Amino acid sequence: MMRDLAEHSELCAINTATFGFQATIAETIDAIARAGFGGIAPWRREVEGQDIKAIARHIRDAGLKVTSYCRSAYIPALTRAEFDTNIQTNFRALDDAAILGANSFMIVSGTSKNLALARAQVAEAVAMLCDYAKPLGLKIALEPLHPVYAADRCCINLLSQALDICDAVNAKNLGVCVDAYHTWWDPNLARDIARAGKRISDYHVSDWLAITTDTLNDRGMMGDGVIDLKAIRQQVEAAGFDGLVEVEIFSTSNWWTKPLADTLQVLKERFATAV
Amino acid sequence: MMRDLAEHSELCAINTATFGFQATIAETIDAIARAGFGGIAPWRREVEGQDIKAIARHIRDAGLKVTSYCRSAYIPALTRAEFDTNIQTNFRALDDAAILGANSFMIVSGTSKNLALARAQVAEAVAMLCDYAKPLGLKIALEPLHPVYAADRCCINLLSQALDICDAVNAKNLGVCVDAYHTWWDPNLARDIARAGKRISDYHVSDWLAITTDTLNDRGMMGDGVIDLKAIRQQVEAAGFDGLVEVEIFSTSNWWTKPLADTLQVLKERFATAV
Repeated sequence: MMRDLAEHSELCAINTATFGFQATIAETIDAIARAGFGGIAPWRREVEGQDIKAIARHIRDAGLKVTSYCRSAYIPALTRAEFDTNIQTNFRALDDAAILGANSFMIVSGTSKNLALARAQVAEAVAMLCDYAKPLGLKIALEPLHPVYAADRCCINLLSQALDICDAVNAKNLGVCVDAYHTWWDPNLARDIARAGKRISDYHVSDWLAITTDTLNDRGMMGDGVIDLKAIRQQVEAAGFDGLVEVEIFSTSNWWTKPLADTLQVLKERFATAV
Repeated sequence: MMRDLAEHSELCAINTATFGFQATIAETIDAIARAGFGGIAPWRREVEGQDIKAIARHIRDAGLKVTSYCRSAYIPALTRAEFDTNIQTNFRALDDAAILGANSFMIVSGTSKNLALARAQVAEAVAMLCDYAKPLGLKIALEPLHPVYAADRCCINLLSQALDICDAVNAKNLGVCVDAYHTWWDPNLARDIARAGKRISDYHVSDWLAITTDTLNDRGMMGDGVIDLKAIRQQVEAAGFDGLVEVEIFSTSNWWTKPLADTLQVLKERFATAV
């Protein structure tokens, strides 16, 4: 039994990257709230160095929840000193996430040429971040990214791999983010979503275009690509996920060129019909 | 105990796509043999409609083995009639592979928007192709392609997934191709190579460039990217693979612009040092 999203845009959160950072965070908050969505996922680049309490108050006053705070500094490093610096940067970001009242802090892990070492460092770091986040009341969301990013962005590339880390770290505030764009192709996806169960803290949607010009910044609007989004949401909800569905569309040459209000209108239609 | 490749370029086969099809198949055969390599993997586009027996004789006379014949017509289809046509096209290609004396026929499966159906069709087709190939003395090599191709080229995206099909089909002449470019990122790669064992009929090398401009045609020369090729070869050989290592580099803007002789010289150096 899936949730009916058709009349429930309040179940949708908008990741601010969907607008390509063309507006200020204040304008973005207002536009998302005005369009009737229920949540927002801001990025560190919009928040750091600003009056974070004022941003948090603005989001609350607009009636929005903060699904996730995006995203971790990359973790892997070839020296211990660099690794420690990365951890400290993430601790500071966790402080900000707590001020924002985020449900989760999104871990996009980073990678390195020493893949095995990078993966071990991520597991170690996740345990440290969970400890730090616990008294702040924050969840850590480990997000497996598509294998195409293994060389430059993320060494966690399968949902099963993220769950193995969850099993090893065994922290109550550790979850996984299932992003349809990163995981739709995985022949073990249904099995691994069921395995994840209530550990799914975040569910992200966009679409994989049949003809993709850029695997980083040519994501599609839900319904424009090949992903069976309804099937994945059914699995995610059957596993126990009942949070807001977050839309995140990186799209340099298409959606990022459009005014926020236009994109928000399409998002609302597609959230009702294609997710 | 790994094989020593340093003085053994006869253990290397060259996939003709490495030259971007800038020369005729006859020129390509001669250039590969002259450079001292031991094998060749030709493509259907170079062979079909030509005097295939003459090409086979030329390859034999040049002292080269044919590792694999590239590659299957795409299998998945949205109608049964189209599926049957795809099977027939592959039967004709198998006839040609037998004339060429290929060790294996490479299955790059294709895909469709109905991913589950596509995967079921591939399993069904593989069984049919194995039956057809058996009296021809040919192996069928199922090649998992990187997940980035799941929407447009191949619905078999994990080595474990290819091995599940091998288990289900259970044909003696069915194997898998491990291509380092497609599989290097997989956290389960070492486990799955060991599981594959003697079923590894082909091992392909190239490199994943740290900064990749195109995931189809910007592959790197071995040693220029991030893949730990020696580690993977060690695993593949420990699993029982003792065939020729095949080089396959799709590289529109770099290697395909160079004369064959220049590329062959670099290939020889890198085969000795980076594979």
